[in-house]
Amino acid sequence: MSDPLARLADVIESRKPANGGDPDASYVARLLHKGPDAFLKKIGEEATEVVMAAKDCDQGGDPKKLVGEVADLWFHSMIALAHYGLKPADVIAELQRREGLSGLEEKALRKAQAREAGGE
Amino acid sequence: MSDPLARLADVIESRKPANGGDPDASYVARLLHKGPDAFLKKIGEEATEVVMAAKDCDQGGDPKKLVGEVADLWFHSMIALAHYGLKPADVIAELQRREGLSGLEEKALRKAQAREAGGE
Amino acid sequence: MSDPLARLADVIESRKPANGGDPDASYVARLLHKGPDAFLKKIGEEATEVVMAAKDCDQGGDPKKLVGEVADLWFHSMIALAHYGLKPADVIAELQRREGLSGLEEKALRKAQAREAGGE
Amino acid sequence: MSDPLARLADVIESRKPANGGDPDASYVARLLHKGPDAFLKKIGEEATEVVMAAKDCDQGGDPKKLVGEVADLWFHSMIALAHYGLKPADVIAELQRREGLSGLEEKALRKAQAREAGGE
Repeated sequence: MSDPLARLADVIESRKPANGGDPDASYVARLLHKGPDAFLKKIGEEATEVVMAAKDCDQGGDPKKLVGEVADLWFHSMIALAHYGLKPADVIAELQRREGLSGLEEKALRKAQAREAGGE
Repeated sequence: MSDPLARLADVIESRKPANGGDPDASYVARLLHKGPDAFLKKIGEEATEVVMAAKDCDQGGDPKKLVGEVADLWFHSMIALAHYGLKPADVIAELQRREGLSGLEEKALRKAQAREAGGE
Repeated sequence: MSDPLARLADVIESRKPANGGDPDASYVARLLHKGPDAFLKKIGEEATEVVMAAKDCDQGGDPKKLVGEVADLWFHSMIALAHYGLKPADVIAELQRREGLSGLEEKALRKAQAREAGGE
Repeated sequence: MSDPLARLADVIESRKPANGGDPDASYVARLLHKGPDAFLKKIGEEATEVVMAAKDCDQGGDPKKLVGEVADLWFHSMIALAHYGLKPADVIAELQRREGLSGLEEKALRKAQAREAGGE
């Protein structure tokens, strides 16, 4: 199978309690077993680590660190998606849909410009 | 071209100031022009929106909302990656590398178990 | 009245829709009128801005910027407290309770040490 | 001494490595010893926990949980303040300064209204 995100999503899927995932043998199974707050908290934490690693890159820090933190962030996002019956393909389809909508970036831009006109 | 994330990364790349991206015509060009704090702040904001949309799903909220928020989070992560000369392919390679490392999930699990043994 | 946080909490209280707060005349009234997601999103956003301002201080940035961001974070926390019928005095009482609990910091420490023993 | 935040700030101050804080005996000393990323990461994490506890309050969750999470958030903010030579009194002075500035809330409101006019 050629799609790495889909393959990773399959692994996560197999870790669900309903699919026999063992919280004592798998980190993902353990997070899924503990429930939403456990993996959602990680999303907030990993987002902060992305921000810190990026700020470090501005000062000569290692971009590989940033790659690792974004990987953590996306990975925990995928655990959340799995819990709610969703897949990375849904996210990618949404990104494609937006890209296909002409005028979409322009709409986001107008909002951002209005924010600035407001003095932010 | 078949990889949607790579294609989106190309669009983001073309929005860089050095590539002629126009902050008055493109949302992405505008964020890249404003610099790291502008798009890093969005990562923290979108992570929080992912968490809120997920909590809403626990109460019957629309999973499509969650897909949209994860899309926003990944999209702004990709803007950060672009700024630091990185690509989504780097993140996916890192996720594959981890998947390929036997014992990796077990290591994460041992850490998590140690945390709990500590009383968290 | 001598307690500045209590006084600020009173101002926020007066901005509640039920107390006649006008969303067209007050920023706080507007956030309270829009509901939890509006001010909770700001907490995630302001926390990220605190992190970025702190990282900037490591590089010679202005500590006043950090003070301003922490003020924003605490201010929006107080809007959330108000919405749920709580006051900054409740938070301060909780902080005092913990300070008074002998062994509390030791418990947090043991947890943190267990995390590290786990290899984090 | 009557000000609980100032007293707590004094305790945190005494935990600094330069003041003899022992990372093996104190949670705060340990965070300060590890450096900014350790306590800044906690700010992102605790902000997310505030958001989740607040969402739970919307569904009948215990407001005491929210108080505890805001206490955690403020506490770790105070560790950051201490590291950068700042005090909660600086934050409170900033909040008072804003309150005293007539028109300040109106400025924040105009910005927020401009955002909405932009279509957000």
